[in-house]
Formats: sequence, structure tokens, C-alpha cells
Amino acid sequence: MNMLVDGEWRTDAYQTTNDDGEFDRQETSFRDWISADEDAEFPAESGRYHLYISRACPWAHRAAMTRRLKGLEDAISLSVVEPVRIDDGWEFSEEYPDPLHGEEFLRDIYTRADDDFTGRVTVPVLWDKEAETIVNNESREIMRMLDTEFDDHAKRDVDLWPEGYREDVDDAIDSIYDPINNGVYRAGFADTQDAYDEAVAELFDALDHWESVLEDQRYLVGDVLTEADVAMFATLIRFDHVYHTHFKCNRRAIHEYPNLWNYTKELAQLPGVEETINVEHITHHYYRSHGDVNPKRLVPTGPDIDFFEPHDRDRLDADLPEALQ
Amino acid sequence: MNMLVDGEWRTDAYQTTNDDGEFDRQETSFRDWISADEDAEFPAESGRYHLYISRACPWAHRAAMTRRLKGLEDAISLSVVEPVRIDDGWEFSEEYPDPLHGEEFLRDIYTRADDDFTGRVTVPVLWDKEAETIVNNESREIMRMLDTEFDDHAKRDVDLWPEGYREDVDDAIDSIYDPINNGVYRAGFADTQDAYDEAVAELFDALDHWESVLEDQRYLVGDVLTEADVAMFATLIRFDHVYHTHFKCNRRAIHEYPNLWNYTKELAQLPGVEETINVEHITHHYYRSHGDVNPKRLVPTGPDIDFFEPHDRDRLDADLPEALQ
Repeated sequence: MNMLVDGEWRTDAYQTTNDDGEFDRQETSFRDWISADEDAEFPAESGRYHLYISRACPWAHRAAMTRRLKGLEDAISLSVVEPVRIDDGWEFSEEYPDPLHGEEFLRDIYTRADDDFTGRVTVPVLWDKEAETIVNNESREIMRMLDTEFDDHAKRDVDLWPEGYREDVDDAIDSIYDPINNGVYRAGFADTQDAYDEAVAELFDALDHWESVLEDQRYLVGDVLTEADVAMFATLIRFDHVYHTHFKCNRRAIHEYPNLWNYTKELAQLPGVEETINVEHITHHYYRSHGDVNPKRLVPTGPDIDFFEPHDRDRLDADLPEALQ
Repeated sequence: MNMLVDGEWRTDAYQTTNDDGEFDRQETSFRDWISADEDAEFPAESGRYHLYISRACPWAHRAAMTRRLKGLEDAISLSVVEPVRIDDGWEFSEEYPDPLHGEEFLRDIYTRADDDFTGRVTVPVLWDKEAETIVNNESREIMRMLDTEFDDHAKRDVDLWPEGYREDVDDAIDSIYDPINNGVYRAGFADTQDAYDEAVAELFDALDHWESVLEDQRYLVGDVLTEADVAMFATLIRFDHVYHTHFKCNRRAIHEYPNLWNYTKELAQLPGVEETINVEHITHHYYRSHGDVNPKRLVPTGPDIDFFEPHDRDRLDADLPEALQ
């Protein structure tokens, strides 16, 4: 694995697992905050910010999906990196260029922000074109900023952190992170059978729990769609194609859980979300980037499933904003 | 990979793929024939022959299942090797010893039969205790010999190559070999995306074909159980645990095909067959033996399926021998 160390690209520096063979995700580094307050250091202005994402990455998907659900396409520009990430980390290419600086690698964006940057080079990256720096590269915070600070620039009246549900939303995001969002990585990148077994047990306990919740409830915290659903969806939409087979989370596929599967289909079918899903980027990224898990880098045909076939979620009450109906 | 070359164990000699990256299974070597004729070189006698098998291996499963369906447990002794096969090939151990000679490795059985043996060391091996040699190590031929030559020593009146169906049985065994029995290996051991894609396409075309046949027909060639079903079962029983995930045959699981799944369950539930199935040996063998496919050698929890839940095959006519009813 690779990372920047004092601004230098190193392919030997980043350890993915700890001494117990458990996957250990390092913290993100840029944690500034864009605010609706026009006097803030990073005020929410239309045209000022740019999102670098990968269509493969679930963390980046949170940001891209929130941007699309809110109707922020005109306010915040977006570009996509090459799906396969090997020795040079995330790369730009002719097909997937850096539209701002014409750089070759995403790490170049990090060193533009900080000459001596030390840390992993990850997506999403929220870039400030005016200050020429990275504001934030933490997906949960980017999702929250896009959701709460850009209402003056959003084409849709959509609130994914609604009053009266905020604590529940935050609790749900917290509670799914370790067993589900990061749990699939803890299974797939485990170096020991014990670490794998523990991750898989926690993952499927959590999926079973939410399958049961979603039997009687339309979304994770009730009948309103929230950031918690965005965070959950980004994992579920990848599950059957990559986590199930590549990360060996094969106890059950999402399409074998009636409620989780119909919930996934409903979210995929919300207006605009389809544009944020790219199964080819997802499969090619995972199967071709992780030589330590899949040395031959073959990309499976994948399960014969269709996210856009009818779902059954209308059987449950939903309090959806008009723009999402 | 490894093999014997002029009786010497070599870990660098055996190539699994050809220049096109396609898996290329080498031919088996011992092809003598046991006959019901008492004047034959290898006459079918009770107590004279021994089967070396692995519970993991589908080719060995053909022999073990035929032995059990015919009731040849008393006539032909059987022993099992260690499930995991790494640098030394198939091994014996304290738990899974060589009951005849106390050898350490299965390759020692091959060099006992032929000092200068060159070839792969595979299961099943049909050993002649009197002549102290290997009679045959080709699963299809062993299945046929056990089926047709040992009727005088069989505890059950079961004929898996019945008159009137023989050509159909042979055609079915031929037709499932390349796309299904060997097809899963062609997918899993492919070195190129093209070779993988071709193998997977042929595999699922063939599964779709048999799913359709089994809609209206109890077994592969009609309402009689035959060697073709034994050959098919040995692959299907392993599919969801190993071929689906480890060999990336993940377009669909067998338990998602109504007819193939119920057919698999029926065969698993025929009297005696359960004893021949060892899911732990199957999963540990595949996931832990193939470092080139699964370098971390983690063993997935596997799908949550039960071969012994009720099947629906009684909706179709069956002409089963009394011993199997």
C-alpha cells in the first residue's frame, strides 16, 4: 500500500492491518468546514468548490449522492478518477482528467494543498478553487456540509438531517460504520482467520438487525430519508458485486434479504441516484486494485441482479420531499 | 504447482495454464481395468482394493459416492487424505493416515506403484493390495468399474449405468465435463480475463440448460439415477461454498436455481450420500490450498444453506432402486 510521507510518494509506508491482522483504517486529514455563514473562512458559495470522487468508492459515493439528491450539480463541480488504483494511488487519465489543474495523480492535489502532506490519498476530496486547498476529505463531514450548508444553492428542497431526527441520524451513521460500512473492509482485508471471522459475524448480525427494522419502517430512522440512508446505500449497492465475493462476505447476498434488497432498489431509483452508480467502476476497482486479495485481478461477471426492477417499499409510509417523489 | 518427474517430487514442474491463460488439466496416468471376470488381471474381489480419496475433491467424490450408493463399503476399503494440499501435494496425517503402508504423502503411493512415475498426484486412487499397485486414477473409469464390475460384492442392487440408457449416460457425462465439472476450474484458474469470461459463459449456459431439463425430468437422463447424476452432483454440492466465491463463478448460486437446487438436495439425501459430503474439507481445501487465487488463505463462513432441508423433486416420476427409496 502507498501514502504520502512529508510530501513524498511511498509505496511501502502504509500498513493496512495491525498486529492482530485486523484492518485498521487511518483517519482522514483535512477537516475544515464550509459554512452557510458568508463570513466564514470557507463560505458556501456556488461555483467555488469542487468534488474529486471515484465512482468505485463507497465513501465518495456518500458525497456524490448527497450532491445529487440536493440538486447541487451546478453549485459544486465534480470529477471522477480512474477506477483502478495500483502503485500510484488514485490517478487521472485522458478519460478521467483533473479539470482544475491537469494533474496526473490525486496525490498531486494533496501536495498542492500541503507540500509536506503525510497520510493516505483518498476520495472524496472537497477542493476550494479560491483558496486553492483541500477543505475536507472526510466523507461523513462532506456529506453533512453539502446537506446542511448549501441550501441557498440547491435546486431541490431536500433535507437529509431533519429536525426531530438529528440524534437518530447521527446514531444510525455511528452504528452502521463499524459493522457494515467499514465491516466489509475489515472482512476483506483481514490478515487472520480470527479477524475475518469476527468482522463477518458482526457484519451479518448488523445486516440481520436492519433487515428486521426495515420490515416495518421505510428508512433507517423512520419514514424520512436521511444521511444515514445515504451511508447505508453506498455499502449495499456494492455488496453483491464486490463485498460478497471479493471480500468473502458470502453468508448471504443483499438480494437474498427481502427488505434490504427492496430498500436498496428504492434508493437506487430515487430521482438522480442512478447517475451516481457505476457498477463497472465498482467491479473493476475492487477486483483489479487489490493484488493481495485477488492476485490474478480477474473481474467476475457478477450476480445477475437488477437494481432498477420494481421494489415493494411503497407498502410502507414515506415522508419524502416532493423533489424525490 | 507440483508433480512427480521420474519419481522425484518437483514443486516447479507443473503448469496449470497454457499460453492463452486457460486452465489445462493434464491426463491421468493409470488406466487399468478391474473386471467382474475372475480370470482378468484385476478381478473384482472383495477386500482386494482400496480407494484413496479426498473429501474435498469432486473427482474423488464420484468414486466415494458410487461406492456408497452401491453398498461397497465392505468390499472396497477407503481412506481420506488431509484436506489442505500445499507444497507436498496431498498428505496423510495422524488424523488421516495411510492405513496400508503408513506413508507420509500420497505421492509415496504413486512411487510405490511406479518408481519413475511422472505426472500429477491426484485423487481418487484405486489401489490393488494384492498386486501392490495403482489400478486406476481416472475418476470416470473408477466410477464405472465400481458401478459395473462389483455387483457380486455390492450390498445394494443399484445400477447406475442401466441398459437402455447407457449411451445417454455417457453423452451426459461427456457434455457436462467441459462446461461444468472442469468448467469451474477453467474459471477459477484462468490467468486471463478472456479465458475466465469464456469459461463462465459456458458454465452458466450449461447450468441454465440443465435447470430447464430438470424442470420436467427427475434426473439428467430421465427418471433413472445414473453415473451422470453422480458426476453432476459432485460439482453442484461444492458450488455455492467454493466455486461461486473462490472461483468467482458468481453469476448465480445453485441455491438460486429452483430445479438444480432441489435436485442437489435430493441427491444429498439419498441413503448414505450424506456420509460422503464434508463441507469443512471442501472449504478448507479450496480456500487454503490455492495461494495464487486466495493469498491470505482465509476461509469464508460460506452461504447459509442447508442441503438437508426438504426438496420438491417428488413432483416428478422416479424409477429408483428399492435400496435408494
